[in-house]
Formats: sequence, C-alpha cells, structure tokens
Amino acid sequence: MRVRHKPWAKGKLDRHSDIVVQSPRDCNGEWHDEFHREAPLHVEIGSGKGRFITGMAKKYPNNNFVGIELHESIIVTALDRCLDEEIENVRLINEDARGLTEFFAEDEVDALYLNFCDPWPKNRHEKRRLTYSTFLAQYEYVLKKGGILHFKTDNQALFEYSLESFSKYGFTLQNISLDLHHARVKDNVVTEYEEKFSEKGQRIYRCEAISSE
Amino acid sequence: MRVRHKPWAKGKLDRHSDIVVQSPRDCNGEWHDEFHREAPLHVEIGSGKGRFITGMAKKYPNNNFVGIELHESIIVTALDRCLDEEIENVRLINEDARGLTEFFAEDEVDALYLNFCDPWPKNRHEKRRLTYSTFLAQYEYVLKKGGILHFKTDNQALFEYSLESFSKYGFTLQNISLDLHHARVKDNVVTEYEEKFSEKGQRIYRCEAISSE
Ligand SMILES: C[S@@+](CC[C@H](N)C(=O)[O-])C[C@H]1O[C@@H](n2cnc3c(N)ncnc32)[C@H](O)[C@@H]1O
Ligand SMILES: C[S@@+](CC[C@H](N)C(=O)[O-])C[C@H]1O[C@@H](n2cnc3c(N)ncnc32)[C@H](O)[C@@H]1O
Repeated sequence: MRVRHKPWAKGKLDRHSDIVVQSPRDCNGEWHDEFHREAPLHVEIGSGKGRFITGMAKKYPNNNFVGIELHESIIVTALDRCLDEEIENVRLINEDARGLTEFFAEDEVDALYLNFCDPWPKNRHEKRRLTYSTFLAQYEYVLKKGGILHFKTDNQALFEYSLESFSKYGFTLQNISLDLHHARVKDNVVTEYEEKFSEKGQRIYRCEAISSE
Repeated sequence: MRVRHKPWAKGKLDRHSDIVVQSPRDCNGEWHDEFHREAPLHVEIGSGKGRFITGMAKKYPNNNFVGIELHESIIVTALDRCLDEEIENVRLINEDARGLTEFFAEDEVDALYLNFCDPWPKNRHEKRRLTYSTFLAQYEYVLKKGGILHFKTDNQALFEYSLESFSKYGFTLQNISLDLHHARVKDNVVTEYEEKFSEKGQRIYRCEAISSE
C-alpha cells in the first residue's frame, strides 16, 4: 500500500495508547484485561486502514478485535476510524505480524483474518507470503483448536498457493468461494482492497482454514 | 452426456473382450495379468468417449490404463479409438464406477482421473457427486499410499465443493489451477468436455488430491 508519509502519525498513535497498544507483549495471555472483559478474541493481520476490522467490530460487538499493521502512516487511519466512530472493542498493534506468537499466547485466539496480503509472486519470495508454512505455524500456535483462519484475496496465484499451503500444513478447508461477489454470501465485510479490486471486475477469492491443533 | 442410443453397441463391446473387460471383478488384484505386464495402473472414472484415456495411453506408453464408463453407447466410441489407433495399454470397463472397490484391490491403483463429472448442483443430490465422501473412501481404498486423484471440471460450484470434500476427507491438495488454460501448464491432455467448455471461454479448474493412506 503506497501511502504518503505522515510525520505526525507516530505522535498520534502514542497519544492514543488506550487503542494503540504500546507493549503488546505484556498482553500475551491476558488480552481480556486490555479489553476489560472476557470475549472471543479475533485478530486481523495487515489490517491496513481499518475498514474491515472496524466494520467487524460494529457488526459483532460481543467480540474483541485486534488489528496488526506494520506502517504507522496507514494504521493511523484505522485509529481515526475507531475514534470517530467511538468503537470500544478494537485494539491496534503497530508492529510486524512476525511477532504474533509474542503478542498472543498458545490457543488464545478464536479467529484470524488475513485480507489481501501482498502476493509476492516470485518463487524466490515464497517465504515472505503470509500463507507460507512458517506463518501458518504461528497461526496454528495462537489459534484455539478448531479456530478459523479467514482468508481473502484477489490474486489467483496467491490463492492457489495458499490453498495448497493450508492443505499441506494440515488445516482443513471450508467455505471456499472462487467468486465471492457473485455468490450468495451474507455477512461479508468488505475491505479497502476488496472494494478496489471488485470494482475493477476482478474475482475475489475466499476460504477458511480450520486449525486442527 | 446425451448420446443417440446405439442398439449395436452392446454386441460390439462383447466382440472386443480383449479391450472391453467382461468380468472386471476377476481382475481384482491381478490387472497386470490382463495387460500381460507389470506397469503403473492408472484408472479413469467416467471416461466418456475416451479422448483423454487414449491420449494419455499414447503419451505414457509405460503405464497401464483402465477407463470406466457406464453407458455402452458412449464407451463404444472409446473402443473405436483404441481399435483405430491400435492402442494396447488401455482396457475399458462398461459398468458403474460404484463397483470400483470390486474391480481393484486395496492399494492396486497408482493414479485416478476424474474429468468433468456431473455436477449435481442441488444440495439434496450431494451424495451423487463423484467427489462425495463415500466415493472418496473408495478412491482412497484402491489408491496406493501417496497415490494421486487428478480432478478437472468447468463447474465452479463443484470445484469449490470438491476442494472442501478432499480436504475434509484428509487428502492433501497440490497443483491447483483456477484457470488451467491460461496457466503455464505442460502435459495437459484435453478431454471432450474440456474442449467444449474452454472453447466457450469458461475457466477450467484442476487439482490433485494425494491419498494419505
Ligand atoms: C495489500 S494491503 C491490504 C490491506 C487491508 N487488509 C485490505 O484488505 O484492504 C496489506 C497490508 O498489510 C500490511 N503488512 C504487510 N506485511 C505485514 C507484516 N509483516 N506485519 C504487519 N502488517 C503487514 C501492509 O502494510 C498493508 O497495509
Ligand atoms: C460429463 S461426462 C464427461 C466425460 C469425459 N470424462 C470428458 O471429460 O469429456 C461424464 C461421464 O461420466 C459417465 N458417468 C457418470 N456417472 C458414472 C458412474 N457412476 N459410473 C461410470 N460412469 C459414469 C457418464 O456416462 C459420462 O460419460
């Protein structure tokens, strides 16, 4: 995502430490304290400008949501959405998602969302894809047994790759859609990228991968 | 497949019992005898007019191929192809594929092919789909451990269903293509239905499911 650098973003994120968690490692195993309530924990990886996670948070007020996003100039828009809409069940982490197993304890997470992650089309960049086996190992670790990884992309090659990667790793696939916006699907919360690509007439691919451990 | 009834088909199939095996159950566990040689055994289910299986047989002369097709008026065309092209490594079975585990012994088959099987779109007909779990159980039984089921279809809903069904049953997915005719794929042998649908501009879906038992 190409975004203008916002030199003021860092300061703003710091000032809203009630939403942008400053030391996510300290919440490991204790996220319910951070939310001041026990509720299912849903985590989005690469949450961008936050349209999806804030949409989900409004739709499912009884869940706790955490969005992880690397870039401060992007996540600051997600923060703005939370502030503007006075959303109380979202927390944001401005770090690399590679820290996932430091932020969350084993079996702490009920659901993970991965939307329109970078496709890294070159074979030699396979390890950077967020559906590469080393990432799946992290997802499996933090997910409860039977927990679900929800995956959407517009990228055909990434989707083919990811289905195989999930399968090989031992996740079970369900709710596959090879053309989500032409399927009878209710309850789809659209992301920024999803809107952009589907408006261009591109197919949106979706699947869910169930963790077995 | 809608085909003109051919009253003479039955007689012709009977006359060529060297190719159209009359008692496939007697070959169970001993197909190499039928082929007069030890070679990997590849089986196609619903082989139609035989374009695929004869194409494969020519391309892979070191494998033994068996095609199973229910309708005599259709399979007779496959027989004609074998005769015209003097193909020696194909045998045909004019029976319902539901007899699979009677025709083949446990672990006797190296590879299975399922091409453009009927989609049975209605939910209440799920059990008739050749990728329904009861069929997968048969495939797993006859396939060697690590044996591969090769699946192609033009039908998006059937493909979505089948990926989930394979995954749920414990097959591992590989070589998924969501648009086979626009992929850099070598060695694809086209079936009758495949030609028809791809000429209409429809996507062809392909995957391989590896048996774990
Ligand atoms: C293509 S965008 C998609 C954004 C959003 N999910 C959507 O669907 O509109 C991918 C996002 O993931 C973020 N990202 C990529 N790798 C990341 C990582 N390792 N950790 C955290 N965020 C990451 C990027 O900064 C970017 O905002
Ligand atoms: C849609 S056609 C596809 C034919 C061919 N595989 C192709 O791709 O051109 C499906 C074929 O499967 C056969 N078939 C359907 N159910 C079958 C069964 N239970 N046992 C054997 N053949 C079957 C039909 O008679 C038909 O010829």
